[in-house]
Amino acid sequence: MATSNSLSFGEGRGEGLYVIKIGGNVIDDSEKLHHFLKAFADLKGNKILVHGGGKMATKLAAEMHIEAKMVEGRRITDIETLRIVTMVYAGLISKNLIAQLQMHGCNALGLSGADGNLIKATKRPIQKIKSKTDDTFLEVDFGFVGDLDDNSIEIKNLSKLLESGFIPVFSAITHDGKSQLLNTNADTIASALAVSMSKNYETSLVYCFEKKGVLVDIDDESSVIREINPINYKDLKAKGIVADGMLPKLHNAFEALNKGVKEVFIGKADDLNELVSRGFLGTKLTK
Amino acid sequence: MATSNSLSFGEGRGEGLYVIKIGGNVIDDSEKLHHFLKAFADLKGNKILVHGGGKMATKLAAEMHIEAKMVEGRRITDIETLRIVTMVYAGLISKNLIAQLQMHGCNALGLSGADGNLIKATKRPIQKIKSKTDDTFLEVDFGFVGDLDDNSIEIKNLSKLLESGFIPVFSAITHDGKSQLLNTNADTIASALAVSMSKNYETSLVYCFEKKGVLVDIDDESSVIREINPINYKDLKAKGIVADGMLPKLHNAFEALNKGVKEVFIGKADDLNELVSRGFLGTKLTK
Repeated sequence: MATSNSLSFGEGRGEGLYVIKIGGNVIDDSEKLHHFLKAFADLKGNKILVHGGGKMATKLAAEMHIEAKMVEGRRITDIETLRIVTMVYAGLISKNLIAQLQMHGCNALGLSGADGNLIKATKRPIQKIKSKTDDTFLEVDFGFVGDLDDNSIEIKNLSKLLESGFIPVFSAITHDGKSQLLNTNADTIASALAVSMSKNYETSLVYCFEKKGVLVDIDDESSVIREINPINYKDLKAKGIVADGMLPKLHNAFEALNKGVKEVFIGKADDLNELVSRGFLGTKLTK
Repeated sequence: MATSNSLSFGEGRGEGLYVIKIGGNVIDDSEKLHHFLKAFADLKGNKILVHGGGKMATKLAAEMHIEAKMVEGRRITDIETLRIVTMVYAGLISKNLIAQLQMHGCNALGLSGADGNLIKATKRPIQKIKSKTDDTFLEVDFGFVGDLDDNSIEIKNLSKLLESGFIPVFSAITHDGKSQLLNTNADTIASALAVSMSKNYETSLVYCFEKKGVLVDIDDESSVIREINPINYKDLKAKGIVADGMLPKLHNAFEALNKGVKEVFIGKADDLNELVSRGFLGTKLTK
């Protein structure tokens, strides 16, 4: 067993792998979702999908009369919320995505981080955050939120699934290895998967979001910045062209590039094929 | 790829495989469940777990103020019920089982029949059933219920998972291959898995339920019938010792034996180890 494992482990080295993240906006729009899943199924080669949650969890919470817990504008994953996101992300959304992908001939497996021990996380410790109303700091327990580190991804088990011809599709639920499920940011999962799997594969990370790419003018879809590298990134920041919500996304993208990911694409789920086929649409980030 | 697949496919032939089904009574009792999962994790060799649903789906439906649809005392899986069982069985229960099994070092994967196209079902056509109140027949649409046939199990993909060292854990959600999820009886899934996998493995089917085995006196746990074969089965039926709910279970068990399963055990989840280690506890069925 040990021999056959170590033989098969790493067979993918040098092969390409796409790690593609879709956000809740695609999940919530059945037409967009159908279009995206068809494109994802048609994409040749090794691929992993990571999906966000969308509005279904909020909808279910409302049906169950459970109120979202917020502290200083930030969401807390209490035990009820964990129960809801586990049902919605790892159950309802995951299995419906898989059933659709299978219809398109894509041999998908709907996974959480607990399955195959694929993504192990650490429950976030109590954090000090600055109050929004004054200069004091508050101790905040974010609840059942899982943070990732460089050893979170079980590269060997995940590679085995890919080598057996399965297409892993991850919901953003992880575990701590001690039987506790945790809620983890889907962007972070995509980035951690891409970085870790870059040890075995030439990995491209693709963030699909609601815009056609990183835009010079947020209201003009034709103003896509086609390529961002560390040099023009500095310039774009200095000029205030990239700011707010886009900054952490780009920061994480450059970090992924520095840790071994070959390229990062940012664009629209609708444009998946054009996005990954090198530069017809969307923004490409390079080192 | 084709070569390595056909080489690895069927490698298990002659190896043992346990297909173990646990019912809702185990799922609903956290102490029993913990005990069972530890025993399951410790069980050596190839194994597959199939789990029922328990009362959590009913509880969630109540929280959502959704009433169970019944016709002539039989449950109908309407679209709302399908949504609930997908969330509860394939999400909440599945992922919590997996997180616990991983804690015990068991490399489990929580799967529905859609994942890896592993269990394909056919939506049950409208059926004529006899009225309970008079002699008329009613046409009943059971809704999103999936029935299985001899080709439902994707033996090749399932064997690949086992050969890669994963332990498949199935919820009773299947799909029709055309993107529709379906609700399927967990006993039926266990039996279909055992029959189909008996082409590649020496398969034992284990039904864990609330009693210590098939009992002569339903109120006396010490009256376990240790072995049932086609000859004493006839006798037990004639004398009315096995009747009611036990009859379809035994009928299905004998059918599984006739279709290639090596042995069937019926007993308590608590007794898993003693049950499968040939005859310390429980009922064993043989051809």
